[in-house]
Amino acid sequence: MEERLDLVRRNVTPVRLMAVRGGVRSERPDTVATEEPLEIRVGGPDQVAIQVAVTMRTPGGDFELAVGFLFTEGLIGPGDVQRVAYCDDLEDQEQRYNVVTVTLERPFDADRVRRNFYATSSCGVCGKAALDDVEVRCAPVAEGTRLPLGVLLGLPDALRRRQSVFERTGGLHAAGLFTADGALVELREDVGRHNAVDKVVGERLLAGEVPLSDHALQVSGRASFEIVQKAAVARIPIVSAVSAPSSLAVEAAQRFGMTLVGFVRDGACNVYTHPERVSD
Amino acid sequence: MEERLDLVRRNVTPVRLMAVRGGVRSERPDTVATEEPLEIRVGGPDQVAIQVAVTMRTPGGDFELAVGFLFTEGLIGPGDVQRVAYCDDLEDQEQRYNVVTVTLERPFDADRVRRNFYATSSCGVCGKAALDDVEVRCAPVAEGTRLPLGVLLGLPDALRRRQSVFERTGGLHAAGLFTADGALVELREDVGRHNAVDKVVGERLLAGEVPLSDHALQVSGRASFEIVQKAAVARIPIVSAVSAPSSLAVEAAQRFGMTLVGFVRDGACNVYTHPERVSD
Repeated sequence: MEERLDLVRRNVTPVRLMAVRGGVRSERPDTVATEEPLEIRVGGPDQVAIQVAVTMRTPGGDFELAVGFLFTEGLIGPGDVQRVAYCDDLEDQEQRYNVVTVTLERPFDADRVRRNFYATSSCGVCGKAALDDVEVRCAPVAEGTRLPLGVLLGLPDALRRRQSVFERTGGLHAAGLFTADGALVELREDVGRHNAVDKVVGERLLAGEVPLSDHALQVSGRASFEIVQKAAVARIPIVSAVSAPSSLAVEAAQRFGMTLVGFVRDGACNVYTHPERVSD
Repeated sequence: MEERLDLVRRNVTPVRLMAVRGGVRSERPDTVATEEPLEIRVGGPDQVAIQVAVTMRTPGGDFELAVGFLFTEGLIGPGDVQRVAYCDDLEDQEQRYNVVTVTLERPFDADRVRRNFYATSSCGVCGKAALDDVEVRCAPVAEGTRLPLGVLLGLPDALRRRQSVFERTGGLHAAGLFTADGALVELREDVGRHNAVDKVVGERLLAGEVPLSDHALQVSGRASFEIVQKAAVARIPIVSAVSAPSSLAVEAAQRFGMTLVGFVRDGACNVYTHPERVSD
């Protein structure tokens, strides 16, 4: 499952730009966060793998991203993965490393893709229907760890200190998984907020460590429905965001029994749901 | 095309939260940005409309979002729209206002949806293939307005001053369309960065004002490939972001002949591509 080092390095891309400072223009080199499409394919041991998604992502952690995505979208379970590999039927090297195939221990029902992503019109298009849909795939996160307030307030700084690509580009979202005593378990960066979460969850799944009931997830930006949904499937009881949550993120966290925290900055925070998990 | 006022108001949602300030907890009311799914359907005058997308969005500007999405994704042209309406075959009011049907002047080729969104594996999965794909749909933005540096540096403040929902929630992306003398033409907010751009472009398309060669687009956050692609289709020659661009955003802007600006703050900025459009 090891990725080639030169590919991992591709998470930043050199550019030349014209900097304007105090009205003065100068040409200079810089780096930006790499964005490239990743195609995710999945199949059973004796099946031709089918494409289930193409996501724009930052290279690095591609196997974790593919597995995490399939898991948090409800397409596979924790014990399903037999093998993860880059595509070997594409000659073009660049394209080859943008296609990941996940081979399962069991046959894959291709209809599940259609049902999961396109069933919205039949079951209703509204926030409640979206919540219903997730609830089918995961029981409420009734238990889960408690987190001391002091640890919670320190998570954003702990995340930022370890964001290596962000420091060089200013351009990446991050997701970090922490234990209840504030130890960082896993941190991933990506141009897509949801991808960063999928990479973290996928890494833990491949390590055999899912469900993640004893952990808190800190994200660098805002908390949308998608983030809360993904955390719910991984059974992460506490989701904390540096910035604001959306209405559907709050509703989802409330309904799934999760603690959702926002605006964690300057020693203050807002706890939107289930504050009982935040201890003194 | 007018939307009901009570629906427009739904762009913020009241919540109760536990605020922690200086270690002291207090319950208080607040508002968060609304996030709800929107299903976009499209069909010809005598066709049953088919679902082409479901996007999580902030209600308000739904017709503009639907039309803008279809246009920037290359599914319809500027003169194609005959009628835009909320769904009238759903009894549930909440769901009804989450489904928008766009009726075209001409038949709609359903295969185009499949080709546009799922053709990636046949034509290659890499940044270059993604650029090729967009290039098929739009010629390079060779011309287009020039923008004085002083105007460019003032765009983020002009955007922020008009972000009414952001002020109340801290939780929305914004996209603003400006003329070369810095006048704001259109501003839209959304939980999704791409949706805010689609709303702006869709509004202009419905007003018969596309292509937008005399304008600059300012976005509140980062600039991804998706943002540059959408601007390219609308022929907006200048895209400016408060924060960082991705590698594929820079490559796309370079190839499509667009000026891409990032980190516009504190009287400084980085011009990544085609700086010749930034005048003194």
